[in-house]
Amino acid sequence: MADGDAMNPEKRVRGGRNQRREERSKGAAVHRPYIVRGIPTYDILSEENLIRIEQTADRILAEIGIELREDHEAMRLYKAAGADVTEQTAGIWRVKFEPGMVREILKTAPAEFTQHARNPANSVRIGGKNVVFAPSYGSPFVMDLDRGRRYGTIEDFQNFVKLSQASPWLHHSGGTVCEPTDVPVNKRHMDMVYAHIRYSDRAYLGSITAPERAADSIEMSRILFGAEFVDQNCVVMGNFNTTSPLVLDGVTAAGIRTYAAANQGSIHLPFLLGGAVAPLTIAGMVAQGLAESMSSCALAQLTRPGAPTILASFFSSMSLKTGSPTFGTPEPAIASLAMGQLARRLNMPLRCAGNFSTSKLPDGQAMQQSMMSMMSAVQGGANYVLHSAGFLDGLLSMSYEKHVMDTDMCGALHAYLDGMAMDDDALAFEALNELGPGQHLFSTQHTLRHYETAYWDSQMDDNQPWETWDEQGGIDSAKRANARWKKTLAEFEAPALDAGIDQALQDFMARRKGAVQDMWY
Amino acid sequence: MADGDAMNPEKRVRGGRNQRREERSKGAAVHRPYIVRGIPTYDILSEENLIRIEQTADRILAEIGIELREDHEAMRLYKAAGADVTEQTAGIWRVKFEPGMVREILKTAPAEFTQHARNPANSVRIGGKNVVFAPSYGSPFVMDLDRGRRYGTIEDFQNFVKLSQASPWLHHSGGTVCEPTDVPVNKRHMDMVYAHIRYSDRAYLGSITAPERAADSIEMSRILFGAEFVDQNCVVMGNFNTTSPLVLDGVTAAGIRTYAAANQGSIHLPFLLGGAVAPLTIAGMVAQGLAESMSSCALAQLTRPGAPTILASFFSSMSLKTGSPTFGTPEPAIASLAMGQLARRLNMPLRCAGNFSTSKLPDGQAMQQSMMSMMSAVQGGANYVLHSAGFLDGLLSMSYEKHVMDTDMCGALHAYLDGMAMDDDALAFEALNELGPGQHLFSTQHTLRHYETAYWDSQMDDNQPWETWDEQGGIDSAKRANARWKKTLAEFEAPALDAGIDQALQDFMARRKGAVQDMWY
Repeated sequence: MADGDAMNPEKRVRGGRNQRREERSKGAAVHRPYIVRGIPTYDILSEENLIRIEQTADRILAEIGIELREDHEAMRLYKAAGADVTEQTAGIWRVKFEPGMVREILKTAPAEFTQHARNPANSVRIGGKNVVFAPSYGSPFVMDLDRGRRYGTIEDFQNFVKLSQASPWLHHSGGTVCEPTDVPVNKRHMDMVYAHIRYSDRAYLGSITAPERAADSIEMSRILFGAEFVDQNCVVMGNFNTTSPLVLDGVTAAGIRTYAAANQGSIHLPFLLGGAVAPLTIAGMVAQGLAESMSSCALAQLTRPGAPTILASFFSSMSLKTGSPTFGTPEPAIASLAMGQLARRLNMPLRCAGNFSTSKLPDGQAMQQSMMSMMSAVQGGANYVLHSAGFLDGLLSMSYEKHVMDTDMCGALHAYLDGMAMDDDALAFEALNELGPGQHLFSTQHTLRHYETAYWDSQMDDNQPWETWDEQGGIDSAKRANARWKKTLAEFEAPALDAGIDQALQDFMARRKGAVQDMWY
Repeated sequence: MADGDAMNPEKRVRGGRNQRREERSKGAAVHRPYIVRGIPTYDILSEENLIRIEQTADRILAEIGIELREDHEAMRLYKAAGADVTEQTAGIWRVKFEPGMVREILKTAPAEFTQHARNPANSVRIGGKNVVFAPSYGSPFVMDLDRGRRYGTIEDFQNFVKLSQASPWLHHSGGTVCEPTDVPVNKRHMDMVYAHIRYSDRAYLGSITAPERAADSIEMSRILFGAEFVDQNCVVMGNFNTTSPLVLDGVTAAGIRTYAAANQGSIHLPFLLGGAVAPLTIAGMVAQGLAESMSSCALAQLTRPGAPTILASFFSSMSLKTGSPTFGTPEPAIASLAMGQLARRLNMPLRCAGNFSTSKLPDGQAMQQSMMSMMSAVQGGANYVLHSAGFLDGLLSMSYEKHVMDTDMCGALHAYLDGMAMDDDALAFEALNELGPGQHLFSTQHTLRHYETAYWDSQMDDNQPWETWDEQGGIDSAKRANARWKKTLAEFEAPALDAGIDQALQDFMARRKGAVQDMWY
């Protein structure tokens, strides 16, 4: 049995790993709906130090509290739960929580839940030992090697949905994969949700930029899944940012309530840039992140106890020379590992880290920074890893080439998280004994049995001899990725969608879009 | 106290971390002689599975044994220690060890030792919680963006010694940083050792390609340090490869004995390419690596009990499509983490992993693969990390640009391994309390106190806004590295070397070189 197997439901079914290997040997990469980790998490903090962070988070919530803006219903919910609420000016409240109170509220949050995909084979299980990769989220710009940086459009958006769907190494279609800036601000959320439904058969995120857009996202999901199913199952999630430090604005609070009331998922993300909206010290940043995310998660649980709720944090640092934000640096990686431990102590699913970088090109810096950040996600036990593919330019740009390179890295991380098989066959004494010292193992029975499936085989890396690589043009990984995304898009076939549902979605969008004027801000 | 501090002598001195921060704030990067890790290791295998690997290694040594070639004295030592030795053909013996016997022999190996540098401030402590980074080793080719790939020369060799010395993020000058192919094979070892002594004041590796070259390396070190000092202290080490699977050749065995007899360090490295010279399965590769390295280490201990001895393994995989070796892939990373656990159970220092890649350019692939591999070294607890800088082309080429990019990454890993400070100042409650919710922390006392030293600040990464980067030419990280190494070499000043010692070294080399004809193979 591999390490950690005892608690791993996938592995308890004898042959999970072997079956994947067999499937791999049949040809192309085999998509798994999500990863069930086969290696433990990387726990860097002692119990004592975890408690110090938790106590600091509790103290922040008790003595400073959070500032809630404009959402009277959220205020009412917090107050009814026993929080100490003081109105500071009209519609702005300071909400304080006795130590332990938020933790108590969060006990109704599920430790794991399923987000359903329209293709049931692609439904994802979020929480526990599960790891779900989703593409990057929220960039206003897109980039490719041919056209450089430019504002994203709905065509770019659709392209990224297609590229994600085509990758066997992502599990979730994500949300705002780029901003479709050519569609009015108050209508683009529907085009985004529609693109996820039309060009992907995986799970997706909905809009959070206004409560009515959240409602539209859920309503479109009801058309797809049926209203009754949606009330009992999570089919869409919203990714909510607190306004750090320690503010929950009214749009966000109302959006959280909208998703939770519909029993849909919500992710509660403080975006913490140390020195700007959080302390520069790692421990302080983590304590603040925990406090903000916990208090935001609590609103979802107070709205509808048991609603799927994901604890989250996005840690970044800054260049001490220029004050610019930095991503993929060591301190946020350490913070993310700690956040993993804290989430497990809360028994809640976690979103944390991803393939972060400040580079403007899919170059060495980009992949080095990404790997440092992404490793903290998979090692730290993050369950939902948004920003798994495409992130460049400090999240300002979604890169076509980086998307391809990152998804290939996500493939490698599948093999990494599988860990090490440990049985007599894997220990391979007989393989060495067959021919003995000094003899190559190419022709042993053991090698013949394993050679088609033993290793992760990248579709993007160049592992050829230098001479072959040179003869073939001597190109770098970014240029290979450039060719790859074009080929993928050219060959893309959208998964079949029921024509009646498609028509109903289009009718809904036409009706909703027709009812209001375009807004561009 | 940071996690793990209780056992961390550096940190027990109050202010170790703070003092470094203060020093950093004074200007340029501050060189530390080596890293003392502030975070725990990443332990992925259970006790039960570690024992299964150890038992398999023991069984390999007991039932298959190792093949020893040509070195009669090594045979005698193994036999005298109780090994079961059978001569198979003239000068070729099969050596088998009862389970537990090698482990018993290795009890005389020091858990930690100091390798002295000619500048005492740069002496390195190898073993325990210490991490030492050294540049890559053994490439016949060198590469840069201007001239492409070509055979290495002694000028390249000197350049890489200078680049390593100039980096604050390496701790050790390494050994064969590239093959100086313009110097005769039987004389180049002296030019290499001389270059390390002349252009660096850090510790270095000597030659292992023939017993007399090992002896020359030690003799030159005696000229530098004095014969008496050398007999009592480690000042040079040899990096020895077993001939996998399960062979110890005569040149290697005699070289090991030469270093150990002189009380100098030896590294015992099986270079395991799964499917070729090791099983394709991870557990089997690790068990074999442990068996080979342990039996090789035992020869050093039998030669001179207590001689500095480093357990080691180099794990690589292969492309299942082409049979080419692959580096920086997930399976070897998992194997390296396991090797770390096994080394700690032996209470011996470990060399494992490094910045491995098969890429032919310092591109995204190069840095992604490197980071996956290097993370396994620093997380797994490797104490001496050879190949920390410059490795490309599956170890066939040493890259100038990659050296610069890797050393910068090594800097980031210093901050990573420092982990998280954990005191009231780091927890930063007062920082958040000072201005309260919704207020940026730029001007808080806490930020002002920390902003010069809080974060790792890369010298190579571009973290500027896109517009600034674009105005400055929009170049990638490889091109920045190209400019950087040229600047570094142009500005390099060799550390002062006593003129008498320099003359004595040159006299020694002239005498030794004059005594034999050039050999080119």
